Amino acid sequence: MKNILSVLVENRAGILARTAGLFARRGFNIESLAVGETADPKVSRMTIVVEGDANAVTQVEKQLNKQIDVIKVRTLSADEALSREAALIKVKAGEGALGHIKDIAAVMGANIADLSATTATIEIIGEPDKVRRLLELLKPYGICEVARTGTFALLKGESSIRI
Amino acid sequence: MKNILSVLVENRAGILARTAGLFARRGFNIESLAVGETADPKVSRMTIVVEGDANAVTQVEKQLNKQIDVIKVRTLSADEALSREAALIKVKAGEGALGHIKDIAAVMGANIADLSATTATIEIIGEPDKVRRLLELLKPYGICEVARTGTFALLKGESSIRI
Repeated sequence: MKNILSVLVENRAGILARTAGLFARRGFNIESLAVGETADPKVSRMTIVVEGDANAVTQVEKQLNKQIDVIKVRTLSADEALSREAALIKVKAGEGALGHIKDIAAVMGANIADLSATTATIEIIGEPDKVRRLLELLKPYGICEVARTGTFALLKGESSIRI
Repeated sequence: MKNILSVLVENRAGILARTAGLFARRGFNIESLAVGETADPKVSRMTIVVEGDANAVTQVEKQLNKQIDVIKVRTLSADEALSREAALIKVKAGEGALGHIKDIAAVMGANIADLSATTATIEIIGEPDKVRRLLELLKPYGICEVARTGTFALLKGESSIRI
């Protein structure tokens, strides 16, 4: 079972190493992790996706809550999470191919962010599944390189995870 | 000086903890880190932004290269990097405010991803500075919560950082 954890932490040196270490010591493989500042630069939000049953995730939540740098932990169910992923995808785009690639990008709500004589780099933000499908659609053209963010998420609607 | 490191790693348990630990032990504060799979699910790309002079960054590069899970490390200059950040921003949007918020989102190339009676959640992908400016523009309306990815980047043009 995939679990999305939203963790508010104090933005101190080494916090990432301590948090990732906590997961590693308990044998959890972090599938993806996205971390960035919140509106308050002293506080960062980590969105962590891990595989594990409900019981194991409860244990990790408890361990996280014991860390002094951790302000708040919330596990988001698939239903309540507004999940997004973003990516840059560089694809071969020689003559003939660019028109098709432009059409695929437009249909998938993505943009061409950079162009060379032989490549196009596409930027996308969307549901994680949409990013996966765009990658599938572009694969036949030849993918040169990819930078993905992993899942980041907030609660849907007006509820907030706040300090 | 801000440095963008693009690091290709084998997607093994604990790799994030080991990498973050390496930076922490050397007193580097990671400003942001984005990690996700590449086109090859066995390989992940980390984009790490750290503050430090050129000499210090060369030392970190060397240490990273010594790790067996690290496949390739490349420091990107500001000129050669196609840098992006993505974010979800939940903002108060009572009657009257929603129209203005919609206009701000449209001008900044962002979309409204979710709506409630009292809030709007905006998704954006763009240059890191653009995400910062959108946050500034939305601040007067009252920001409820934010999830940012940190910087992720590829080389501009047709060059690739590959295995």
